[in-house]
Amino acid sequence: MARKQLFDIKGAFAIYKEDELFLGHTQYILLKALISEGSINAAAKKCKISYQQAWTLADRMNRLSPIPILIRQKGGKDGGGCKVGAYGEELIRLYERKMQQFSEEMMLLNQDLDSCLL
Amino acid sequence: MARKQLFDIKGAFAIYKEDELFLGHTQYILLKALISEGSINAAAKKCKISYQQAWTLADRMNRLSPIPILIRQKGGKDGGGCKVGAYGEELIRLYERKMQQFSEEMMLLNQDLDSCLL
Repeated sequence: MARKQLFDIKGAFAIYKEDELFLGHTQYILLKALISEGSINAAAKKCKISYQQAWTLADRMNRLSPIPILIRQKGGKDGGGCKVGAYGEELIRLYERKMQQFSEEMMLLNQDLDSCLL
Repeated sequence: MARKQLFDIKGAFAIYKEDELFLGHTQYILLKALISEGSINAAAKKCKISYQQAWTLADRMNRLSPIPILIRQKGGKDGGGCKVGAYGEELIRLYERKMQQFSEEMMLLNQDLDSCLL
C-alpha cells in the first residue's frame, strides 16, 4: 500500500459561459438527479437543497445553454415533471470526461509534493 | 488574434496538510506581501485584509509548516516586524511552479471546449 502523502494538492473546476457559471459540481449533481428523479421537486430532495435553489440553478443553466437542457412537462401530482433532453445528457458526459482529465492532472500536480515540502 | 472562446473552464487549487488548508492563493499573496512589507500590519494593508485576518492566516500557515515560515522580530513602531525565512521563500517558488503547471493543465482542459458545447 502506498504511503499516504502528508501534503496534498486539491482543486476544483467549473465551466463558465462568458464569465457566468454554467456547469460546476452542484449543477452536475443536479442534472444527474433530474434524470433519475424526473422532477425538480424530487431532484431537489435528492440533492438536499431547497426547491427554490434547484429551480434557480436549473433555470440559469437552461438560460445559458445554447440548446435547452430541460424540457418542462406540465401536469402530474408534482406540478409537472422535468425531462433532461439529449443535450443535457451530452453535457453530463462532457463534464465526466473533464472530471477524469482534471483528476489525472491533479495527480501530476501532486507528484513529489511531499519531497518538495519536507 | 485567436477568437475568444464562448465557454471557458476555470479552476483553482490549494495545498492541504492532512485536509487542513495550508497554502492557497490568499496565503501566497500574503507571503509575498510579508516579504515586501516586512510586517504583518503593512502586509495586511497591502492585501486589503484586517490585521486580525492576516495574523490568523500567517499563524495557521506557520503552525502547519514542517519548518517555521515566519520569524518574529520584536520591537519597532509597528509592534515588531515579521521576516519570511528561507523555507517561506522556497514555498513561494514551489507555489509558483504549481500555478504555472496548473494553468497549462487548464489550457489542455479548455481545448476544443466550444466545439463540444456548440
